Amino acid sequence: MSVTFPAGFKAAGVTAGLKVSGKPDLALVVNQGPAPAAAAVFTSNRFPAAPVQYCRQVLAAGATPTAVVLNSGGANACTGEQGMADAVAMAEAAALALGLSPDQVLVCSTGMIGELLPMAKVRDGIGQAVEELADGEPAGTAAAQAIMTTDTVDKQVAVSSPAGWKIGSMAKGAGMLAPGLATMLVVLTTDAILAQADAQAALKEATRLSFDRADSDGCMSTNDTVILLASGASGVVADPSVFTTALTFVCQRLAQLLIGDAEGAHHDIAITVAGATSEAAAEAVGRAIARSNLFKTAMAGGDPNWGRILAAAGTVPAEVAPYDPGRVDVTINGVTVCRGGGVGDPREGVDLSGRQVEIVVDLKVGPAQATILTNDLTHDYVSINADYST
Amino acid sequence: MSVTFPAGFKAAGVTAGLKVSGKPDLALVVNQGPAPAAAAVFTSNRFPAAPVQYCRQVLAAGATPTAVVLNSGGANACTGEQGMADAVAMAEAAALALGLSPDQVLVCSTGMIGELLPMAKVRDGIGQAVEELADGEPAGTAAAQAIMTTDTVDKQVAVSSPAGWKIGSMAKGAGMLAPGLATMLVVLTTDAILAQADAQAALKEATRLSFDRADSDGCMSTNDTVILLASGASGVVADPSVFTTALTFVCQRLAQLLIGDAEGAHHDIAITVAGATSEAAAEAVGRAIARSNLFKTAMAGGDPNWGRILAAAGTVPAEVAPYDPGRVDVTINGVTVCRGGGVGDPREGVDLSGRQVEIVVDLKVGPAQATILTNDLTHDYVSINADYST
Repeated sequence: MSVTFPAGFKAAGVTAGLKVSGKPDLALVVNQGPAPAAAAVFTSNRFPAAPVQYCRQVLAAGATPTAVVLNSGGANACTGEQGMADAVAMAEAAALALGLSPDQVLVCSTGMIGELLPMAKVRDGIGQAVEELADGEPAGTAAAQAIMTTDTVDKQVAVSSPAGWKIGSMAKGAGMLAPGLATMLVVLTTDAILAQADAQAALKEATRLSFDRADSDGCMSTNDTVILLASGASGVVADPSVFTTALTFVCQRLAQLLIGDAEGAHHDIAITVAGATSEAAAEAVGRAIARSNLFKTAMAGGDPNWGRILAAAGTVPAEVAPYDPGRVDVTINGVTVCRGGGVGDPREGVDLSGRQVEIVVDLKVGPAQATILTNDLTHDYVSINADYST
Repeated sequence: MSVTFPAGFKAAGVTAGLKVSGKPDLALVVNQGPAPAAAAVFTSNRFPAAPVQYCRQVLAAGATPTAVVLNSGGANACTGEQGMADAVAMAEAAALALGLSPDQVLVCSTGMIGELLPMAKVRDGIGQAVEELADGEPAGTAAAQAIMTTDTVDKQVAVSSPAGWKIGSMAKGAGMLAPGLATMLVVLTTDAILAQADAQAALKEATRLSFDRADSDGCMSTNDTVILLASGASGVVADPSVFTTALTFVCQRLAQLLIGDAEGAHHDIAITVAGATSEAAAEAVGRAIARSNLFKTAMAGGDPNWGRILAAAGTVPAEVAPYDPGRVDVTINGVTVCRGGGVGDPREGVDLSGRQVEIVVDLKVGPAQATILTNDLTHDYVSINADYST
């Protein structure tokens, strides 16, 4: 149930030798049409990696890319002119081997920032990947595994529409997971027939309601890329609204998988801010809580310390999220530990022994709500990020 | 060299029994004039603790407080109407014992949020503190020790002006240290003669350039309070500009002490953003870096991972801090590891074995700069905040 689940796609994942671990590190996804469309969204970081800059240029020029080459083992970010030349060279190498023009190939990289890619290895890896291109699930899974960094499992989600089209996907990302996209690379594939504009609109809406609300550690990456490729091989024209709903479902499931595999996390936390005046207000409050290290460490310690939730909520300016602090309720795993901004039911009643944590903050001023997914801050997070360069 | 260093002040620190540890937990500072003035700044958190709300009311009504009662062992925050009544009762108890009116007494609390104070113990402690009030350094140090929570040392700074007046101070704070004040209680004393308006203006400027730029863990408290009491006992009218400079010096030293004692920290990090178009722009970029958990864990691991510095800087919108990402330099402890947004001198040359870390990010677009003080994110921080309710 991978990127090759919809008709019209081939994939490969190989070991180019970029990772010192010797694990697979180069993936290729190819859209064989017959009616190709492509869409993409990228990090909003002001230091976008060279492949992000390259992809933006290609898409801005009006190209319809039909292949994506992705490497782990090096982010090719903050690498200057040489980095940009390397990103272009990756596209050219794949295009040459696939019989495409370079602007038909998108490029994604993930790994350490500020180091140049070993291009001889990358070129050999691309050649090998083109040789190994195949349809079917093993090839898709090989690609999904080749983009992993600190991920402990590959992440793939797929759905079938009764209308006759399918969506497949692969994602990587375990740290630097924050909004304006989480730190991740995602390739979504579909065999629906989609107009380019509809593909872009669907992708934008789906990411807004999924990856943009996954905030594991508040850190925004330089390389985040989400690409949607449509082949049209099902022969079915997708209803844009139905397709957007299905794509949103896939992206939300992928976001849950990303949060569920976040570096060192022991709890997956869904923070729902309800009763807000607007979705944006609810999102701002949820994000402030999700980014509080004191809240996150309390969760790691199994401590339902709701004071830290209010202290974090209280940092959002009133003009961003209007509410009366004296009316706010906080419920943790079903226990309303804070009522009207003050002491509620006994915190001893909260069970935080499981991995899933549900927090509801009710602002009681409006009808809007939003849910932010985050993680706890654990010793393992510190170990993973303090003891290794990633 | 404590709050009793300037003439006209008495202090006390006693054990009221609020802390389970049995350590001192209630302090009193009294201004004996003859020309009293007072100023204060508070947390901008929208869930201000009851004592913060009480102090704001008293000052807004035009009172000139001459005493401060402070307790550790309980924040009296998110405690509703009972919490407000308790804050008022603390002021009334101190006022009665000191022969003052209640609006001459300010109240500060620190400790766990969402729990009511044991008022019988607080009242007994206030009575005991009034009996033990004394001038001289031991009394001031006793007060400084009684406001400690996870602090490992008491924090006191004092200066003498050649003009004939002095400034003394005490501070507490080790976690929830973030802007809009760090999480802390600070009492500043001076025997200069100061107009109320000059005292407030001096305090506002001094905190802006000190505590507001200390951002240990990005978490803003509900209880932050900085109080300045002037006695006039030196008989010398202070030049407002000279006094502001001296007060800023004291506050900056206190901020360094707070950062130097931050929960679990192994590195004290000064992030200077230079070459900015404005001080606000420099501050925004510095703060974004200071709040990046990936940057902070890299520092904990002794890893000069400059890519994480740029990734964090890149989250600040261009309208907040205009700069060209392709021109930015990053220097860590004297080694320019990033030049022009790309690879600079070898990162292996950076020595991060000491506690002090100096980071300079040069945006190269203007003349303004600002320095943010922060800490690394360590296993000990997680332990302190995950394993204990504070």
